[in-house]
Amino acid sequence: MSDNWLDAIKWTEDGLVPVIAQEASTGQVLMLAWMNREALALSVQEGRAIYWSRSRQKLWRKGEESGHVQILKDIRLDCDNDVVLLQVEQQGGIACHTGRHHCFYKQLQGDRWVEVDPVLRDPKEIYK
Amino acid sequence: MSDNWLDAIKWTEDGLVPVIAQEASTGQVLMLAWMNREALALSVQEGRAIYWSRSRQKLWRKGEESGHVQILKDIRLDCDNDVVLLQVEQQGGIACHTGRHHCFYKQLQGDRWVEVDPVLRDPKEIYK
Repeated sequence: MSDNWLDAIKWTEDGLVPVIAQEASTGQVLMLAWMNREALALSVQEGRAIYWSRSRQKLWRKGEESGHVQILKDIRLDCDNDVVLLQVEQQGGIACHTGRHHCFYKQLQGDRWVEVDPVLRDPKEIYK
Repeated sequence: MSDNWLDAIKWTEDGLVPVIAQEASTGQVLMLAWMNREALALSVQEGRAIYWSRSRQKLWRKGEESGHVQILKDIRLDCDNDVVLLQVEQQGGIACHTGRHHCFYKQLQGDRWVEVDPVLRDPKEIYK
């Protein structure tokens, strides 16, 4: 398999690309994270989302601790070749480390952010 | 109106935040762009998406030339306070400067990116 498709991507100076994970079955945007070249290559190879953790500076196999693996259904690149969009099957129905379905649970109401989506599972139970 | 909600956001070193625009009616992810503090404040004030163009280093009132304005329906912030998700009504049904409905028209098929979504309107006609 050629690596040309990886060369097509405009990586940041840090060698990363922002990746949006959208739930294939609901269309809900679950999260945005980052991948480096290795993470994206491995994601395709293994059929699951593997990100680059900027805080930990290492590969982050989404779901490795929580079991909340994201199975890849579709991979898209945008017009400028600098954003990736994944369609995923979110195992366990929880993408967010707070135990919520997705990460975008704070809604702007007037001049404040209000948490509008419920915690489905206590993070203490998810990360033991 | 207090500016505390803007202070809640973790801006990058360049003072930006990545913003995902999702079409409210279809759930389709249209594009990802960036906003600075002024762009986000103006977006909320005017009820339309106003981005910060990193290439032109100026405010980018989405649709100012094309008429393809994005009307804001909902604004979300993620768990880490560093990504914004908009629900928008995409006027003209075209979000991408290539004349396509959305920017994510290249699909990974095997080891190559294939353009799978049609051009709805010639960019030459959009940007005169």
